[in-house]
Amino acid sequence: MYLKNSWYCAGWAKDLADSPISLKVMDKPIVIYRGANGKPIAMDGICPHRFAPLVQGKVQGDDIMCPYHGLVYNKEGQCILNPHADGKIPPNAKVNSYSIVEKDGVLWLWMGDSPSDESLILDTAWLQDDAYAEVTGYLHVRANYQMVMDNLLDLTHAPYLHADTVGGDPELSIGAQLEFSFDVSEDGMIHSNYLVRGMKGPTPLFEPWWGKNPGDFRAEMRWKAASSLELDIRMSPLDAPKTEGIHSPSFHFLVPESETTTHYFYAQAEFSRRAFEDEDEPMIQACQENMTSIDLFANDPAILQSDVAGIQARRMLAKMIKAENQETL
Amino acid sequence: MYLKNSWYCAGWAKDLADSPISLKVMDKPIVIYRGANGKPIAMDGICPHRFAPLVQGKVQGDDIMCPYHGLVYNKEGQCILNPHADGKIPPNAKVNSYSIVEKDGVLWLWMGDSPSDESLILDTAWLQDDAYAEVTGYLHVRANYQMVMDNLLDLTHAPYLHADTVGGDPELSIGAQLEFSFDVSEDGMIHSNYLVRGMKGPTPLFEPWWGKNPGDFRAEMRWKAASSLELDIRMSPLDAPKTEGIHSPSFHFLVPESETTTHYFYAQAEFSRRAFEDEDEPMIQACQENMTSIDLFANDPAILQSDVAGIQARRMLAKMIKAENQETL
Amino acid sequence: MYLKNSWYCAGWAKDLADSPISLKVMDKPIVIYRGANGKPIAMDGICPHRFAPLVQGKVQGDDIMCPYHGLVYNKEGQCILNPHADGKIPPNAKVNSYSIVEKDGVLWLWMGDSPSDESLILDTAWLQDDAYAEVTGYLHVRANYQMVMDNLLDLTHAPYLHADTVGGDPELSIGAQLEFSFDVSEDGMIHSNYLVRGMKGPTPLFEPWWGKNPGDFRAEMRWKAASSLELDIRMSPLDAPKTEGIHSPSFHFLVPESETTTHYFYAQAEFSRRAFEDEDEPMIQACQENMTSIDLFANDPAILQSDVAGIQARRMLAKMIKAENQETL
Repeated sequence: MYLKNSWYCAGWAKDLADSPISLKVMDKPIVIYRGANGKPIAMDGICPHRFAPLVQGKVQGDDIMCPYHGLVYNKEGQCILNPHADGKIPPNAKVNSYSIVEKDGVLWLWMGDSPSDESLILDTAWLQDDAYAEVTGYLHVRANYQMVMDNLLDLTHAPYLHADTVGGDPELSIGAQLEFSFDVSEDGMIHSNYLVRGMKGPTPLFEPWWGKNPGDFRAEMRWKAASSLELDIRMSPLDAPKTEGIHSPSFHFLVPESETTTHYFYAQAEFSRRAFEDEDEPMIQACQENMTSIDLFANDPAILQSDVAGIQARRMLAKMIKAENQETL
Repeated sequence: MYLKNSWYCAGWAKDLADSPISLKVMDKPIVIYRGANGKPIAMDGICPHRFAPLVQGKVQGDDIMCPYHGLVYNKEGQCILNPHADGKIPPNAKVNSYSIVEKDGVLWLWMGDSPSDESLILDTAWLQDDAYAEVTGYLHVRANYQMVMDNLLDLTHAPYLHADTVGGDPELSIGAQLEFSFDVSEDGMIHSNYLVRGMKGPTPLFEPWWGKNPGDFRAEMRWKAASSLELDIRMSPLDAPKTEGIHSPSFHFLVPESETTTHYFYAQAEFSRRAFEDEDEPMIQACQENMTSIDLFANDPAILQSDVAGIQARRMLAKMIKAENQETL
Repeated sequence: MYLKNSWYCAGWAKDLADSPISLKVMDKPIVIYRGANGKPIAMDGICPHRFAPLVQGKVQGDDIMCPYHGLVYNKEGQCILNPHADGKIPPNAKVNSYSIVEKDGVLWLWMGDSPSDESLILDTAWLQDDAYAEVTGYLHVRANYQMVMDNLLDLTHAPYLHADTVGGDPELSIGAQLEFSFDVSEDGMIHSNYLVRGMKGPTPLFEPWWGKNPGDFRAEMRWKAASSLELDIRMSPLDAPKTEGIHSPSFHFLVPESETTTHYFYAQAEFSRRAFEDEDEPMIQACQENMTSIDLFANDPAILQSDVAGIQARRMLAKMIKAENQETL
């Protein structure tokens, strides 16, 4: 159910200061702290002696000391000090360490066995750009991460679930007004694009900047395996290139905590935050509770044409997970 | 464990107004709403597209619209509108609908596959009678519905569990003072009748109306499968017919939510409410927690003669459930 | 996982007054009350009729009456009164009763099938000695009782986990400063002794009584199966016998409630209470949550020399449990 060889967001760099933090990723508690040079270090968060949570330990340069009996682990996860009795270090007194990278204010974690490749990290350059009023945040979602992917890859829910917030006109749902395109890029990213030409007025969220004039509205979602998504919302003058007008980008980094829970890190404009927290999250959780299996298809869903992007992403992911498991065998 | 071909109380009609309500019955979430003519409509409460809870949807005449992506279902549970893309409706975009009837202020739901027959609905005419001060309410009980049946069909617990409320004199428990009779009517209702002739004074609950004079006290319980009960409590002059004196009837409609939880709808006089809420409910739940199996008999209970009515009801029900399951096979 | 033929603390005698109390021991709810002569009585806490909790019943001399239907049980657990109908008492209307003894303010319960022997009860005479300022208390620990045993039998965690309370100097952890001895007495008690000769100053807990002078510090733990422990902490003048100076004893009575929860009754000086409640308990619970099996060894722990006492106690206990189970077969 999990793709291990992939970069996952492990949080916002600004939230990792002097104290270690802990994050359960794919059922494993991970401890993350800054070493002597300030660079992040990540390893399994459970001391193999008595299973104490290392996140409660003390950082000593690049090392971390277990809070229970004082065993010290280096950044490779090897126990290098047993302060007791004969001081011998048993062979299994070590934990797995993981590649972790700080980039554009994001911590990226690689949990797989294959060597990590920083060039595969998502391009997040605009997070450093002052032109975008940025809000970073976190939601803990009680649903499988692929349920959140489905939600983001099928934006046709906006006029219904988000009628009171980011909304949209349900009249536009049907027929030629809404142009939808979908493609998979060479590097395996899924693009799910929505265009409404000559929308009479913008959704309420754009009105303060755009006024009530008609224009071309675009919502373009890009998914990158395992589960990072970028959404560009745009309002452009009629028939103008999409780079003209208003542009509001957002990131949605999903991290499987367990089969039924997801860490959801987001970076977006403040005005759309409420839609995700108050409308999407409760709905996704309610849907998950109504399902008899974590596997969507085992629930025999009624599949619509508008599900194409989500379904395609699930299939790509399933294929990658299968390939990864076969390598391991 | 469940009898499907039976009328179950789905709530009080006055609680179903403009918004849909949801009730889990025999493990299935059911959505109930009023159609264009005000008549109640009931169907499975989960949209088969993405499993959103239909109870959050919008009612449109006789139809209901899914809150997540706007699919519309008619009162037969058939999806009649997919507002997206090609607008095609997949064959499995439908849910089961159920017979539901409003009578004397009660909503009655039929979940079985056999055709429903309104003439089988319990006679609840007195609910419309102003002569009885009526309180309708609801308890959510964390116990199997048959545990609540047991409690109601064996009123010998009153002098012990209800010593401080509806009570009764424990001295009357043993011997000839308490006359008990039990029978099964032609239409399969179980009658469990308690009579104390010449009770020195009434239970505290009748004192305000009866005073402290002696009289004949009666408590008569009638059970109708699957799990609706009516209790008549009476205080009559010595040796007079039971129709003379004071009469306090009550209804107890039990609905299996799951194997271990029960919806308990009651209509009764205010003065006996506390006994059910504060004394019966906690005790039944405590007993359920102490049991190792939902099946009473698998717990090897010590069976008393006073258990006869409850045991008989359980046996009749087990027989009906077995017959129903064999029909289905 | 449980040793049945053993004395377990069932609480503090002062907490058992007129009302019955209930304690789940090795997955069984036990009801305990004082009989006519004030002596404690213990039996299974579930009425075999309808599984009502006997702890809510009324004590009548040496007997207890079920709160639901009024069945009365004598101190041997035999039902002696059915107040209903024919009054017959079914053969299975009885519960197991257990030996229970009050000694030095402690209630001791014997759950096993072998005859109980009061001479095997732990010597707790100092609990009656006014010279020790005594605090008795209770913690409910969400961990297996053997995890608490491990914590108490390996005090090397003090300088780390208790750095801010009872503490100790981590510098003393390694090498000859800390003398450790370990032995098993003839009667099967494990002794785990820690000695620091010429400790520069005492741990903060002794400072009010001892000042800042150097001395010999001792912490001596004694474990008795199944799970009762006594800890003596001492500060003595340099090279003096350990009976000179300051002595602070404590008791730690562990009772398996279930495989993953423990009743922890303690008697100790007030100043060390915080260490157990605020530091040990949360750590033990966190460790338990991080384990994949209740069986420590199935988690493949990194074993240190300082684990010797805890490991030895676990092995002795496992041997005793195995022997007990073989007897039963």
